[in-house]
Amino acid sequence: MEYISGGVCAAAGFRAWGLHCGVKNNSGDKKDLALIVSDLPCAAGAVYTTNVVKAAPVLVTRAHLMDGRARAILANSGNANACAPHGEEYANRECELISKELGLAPEDIVVASTGVIGQTLNIAAIEAGIPALAASLSYDGSDAAARAIMTTDTLKKEAALEFTVGGVTAHIGGIAKGSGMIHPNMGTLLCFITTDVNIAPEMVDLAVREAVRRSFNRVSVDGDTSTNDMCVVLANGMAKNPLICDGGEDYTAFLDALCELTVTLAKRIASDGEGAKHLITCTVSGAADEAQAEVLSKAVISSSLTKAAVFGCDANWGRVLCAMGYSGVDFDPELVGVSFSSAAGSVQLCALGRGLDFDEELAKKVLSEHDVQIGITLGLGDESCTAWGCDLTYEYVRINGDYRT
Amino acid sequence: MEYISGGVCAAAGFRAWGLHCGVKNNSGDKKDLALIVSDLPCAAGAVYTTNVVKAAPVLVTRAHLMDGRARAILANSGNANACAPHGEEYANRECELISKELGLAPEDIVVASTGVIGQTLNIAAIEAGIPALAASLSYDGSDAAARAIMTTDTLKKEAALEFTVGGVTAHIGGIAKGSGMIHPNMGTLLCFITTDVNIAPEMVDLAVREAVRRSFNRVSVDGDTSTNDMCVVLANGMAKNPLICDGGEDYTAFLDALCELTVTLAKRIASDGEGAKHLITCTVSGAADEAQAEVLSKAVISSSLTKAAVFGCDANWGRVLCAMGYSGVDFDPELVGVSFSSAAGSVQLCALGRGLDFDEELAKKVLSEHDVQIGITLGLGDESCTAWGCDLTYEYVRINGDYRT
Repeated sequence: MEYISGGVCAAAGFRAWGLHCGVKNNSGDKKDLALIVSDLPCAAGAVYTTNVVKAAPVLVTRAHLMDGRARAILANSGNANACAPHGEEYANRECELISKELGLAPEDIVVASTGVIGQTLNIAAIEAGIPALAASLSYDGSDAAARAIMTTDTLKKEAALEFTVGGVTAHIGGIAKGSGMIHPNMGTLLCFITTDVNIAPEMVDLAVREAVRRSFNRVSVDGDTSTNDMCVVLANGMAKNPLICDGGEDYTAFLDALCELTVTLAKRIASDGEGAKHLITCTVSGAADEAQAEVLSKAVISSSLTKAAVFGCDANWGRVLCAMGYSGVDFDPELVGVSFSSAAGSVQLCALGRGLDFDEELAKKVLSEHDVQIGITLGLGDESCTAWGCDLTYEYVRINGDYRT
Repeated sequence: MEYISGGVCAAAGFRAWGLHCGVKNNSGDKKDLALIVSDLPCAAGAVYTTNVVKAAPVLVTRAHLMDGRARAILANSGNANACAPHGEEYANRECELISKELGLAPEDIVVASTGVIGQTLNIAAIEAGIPALAASLSYDGSDAAARAIMTTDTLKKEAALEFTVGGVTAHIGGIAKGSGMIHPNMGTLLCFITTDVNIAPEMVDLAVREAVRRSFNRVSVDGDTSTNDMCVVLANGMAKNPLICDGGEDYTAFLDALCELTVTLAKRIASDGEGAKHLITCTVSGAADEAQAEVLSKAVISSSLTKAAVFGCDANWGRVLCAMGYSGVDFDPELVGVSFSSAAGSVQLCALGRGLDFDEELAKKVLSEHDVQIGITLGLGDESCTAWGCDLTYEYVRINGDYRT
């Protein structure tokens, strides 16, 4: 398995593009409409937001993927089409427009939106933009699509892998967006993944659930779960491996590649959290079981006080222990160890639940690096879990104090 | 029932004081040690933090209050005595020092701490400070005690009420501290309440639990629950009302006064949230039951995105609906209404789950006031609940990025 270029066009038979159609109110320099299309019908699986309030495109996509089949993805940024007048009507209309333009069944279209909640989607701008978007579709168009789904993201999130499955070479690639409103236990932000693996729809569905559990559900930027989160995988079979229809070795090879990809995208999202200056990786080890380690690691990366301390390069490890304490799972505080580490070194701050004397200067240096690891040992067993987050900065407040204007 | 002055010394037979002993590293201008003493033995009840990691004074106080009796409260700021070497030893030592100084049983002393986690408590400074503290105890000393428990608080929190119970005039007063690390479902921050009501220990215990549920458990500053939270009520009986030993009319009169006091202190804590520029009051009405309204109102005041929007005076009501959606309770999004109001007016932003056209200029004015109300209607029934929080500001990040120095 190795990283390659190409994003959602790395797999055989996928074209993509992105452009500015006018959903975003700007002079046209910011793309706001993306399209991904497979040359062949695809097995499809998806995970959606757990928010009770679901945006119209989430409802429409969920209905369209009931049969495990899809062929294209249309996504806009700049407007969430959630709690908005004509929501489902316009989401369905988008599918009809793509259907007419590309000669596909409307039920084979996935539709997604991200942006402001509660404002009417500019469907006229989307309608006007679709012909040019379709005409520009390219086997080299992942970059344009990745940029067109960005909102407050400062970096595009795009990755792809080549791997072996069933004796043949296969490819998987994805693009994602997400910077704020990101928290464990959602479906996820927006993430579109394409692969040329030959796999049955029910196995795609199983794999995407597992991959999201191990990646996007372990990322937090601000504790808010969006109305629009969605992670979709399209598999068109063009790698010609023997069809994966059960949980054997080939399924494992596919799942490993999918998880590698989603973890990479999840880390980039945490690293590009709104206003973030640090990527925080928290690993809880020595746990009695994975669930315990998962809840604790998520609580630490979600704590506003821990996030603010990392922003200030302040080795205030008490906040780590405090966050663990209110996480809702039990553990023995008297066995806990806490360390901070980075490329600049490592400092042990607490052992057996008690503070240690430590080198404040070194701790400051460790926390001044962009990538900071918080290591926690529980002394209870052999299980572990890693979660990813970012620091809380002035910039996060600035961005979110004035998001709509 | 009416507000009076006097704080924890408003009730008959309570003396208090606060001074600088040296737990806080400063030149002596910031008080860090408070003492409250009753002339007579008291019935006592308390609620403690639900954090798995409990500070040593929480454990010692809980043991001391098992018999429902206490006489004095010693509290320091500047150090949490949590996860620190010699934690319980020093908490017990504090009780022994007060016991010796005042001639009380050590088991009748409540001890509390607030400040940095994981550093050794300066017990020598406390020991040296106690004689002067005891000598200064005054029936007019609430102000000094209230100031001595402040950490990042910018305002002291102190209130008192006069009310009638069992045909006599009684008094209740309290001081509280709390600015960060404040979130629903903790015991609470630090809050010390004194009353001259004559009441049995088991009824004090019942009342403090109910009052905390209706007040401090409905406040959030940052979603973090401290290791040190504690709300203690001491009742010395000097009002000479017939002993309250069951849940009749006199109990209700006492509970009403206690709840009025704790809600007032809770609102002052939210209003003085670290870096806060706004007090946010969220009322959910039209709920099927109180629990539904409570979870939803707490989710809204805890949402970083909603808090940042209020900071920016941006009427981004979609974040309110989004926070409700991930709160974990069910409701019908299609029936929801949302309005923002303040002294400057009121704006309806959403009705039946859909965005309305609204006056952006007026909305900006409404959100520019210090006290902002978010009103949510569910259209499901007649129950309601109110929760209190504050906005998320640059200042919060600054304070918490460099707390220890």
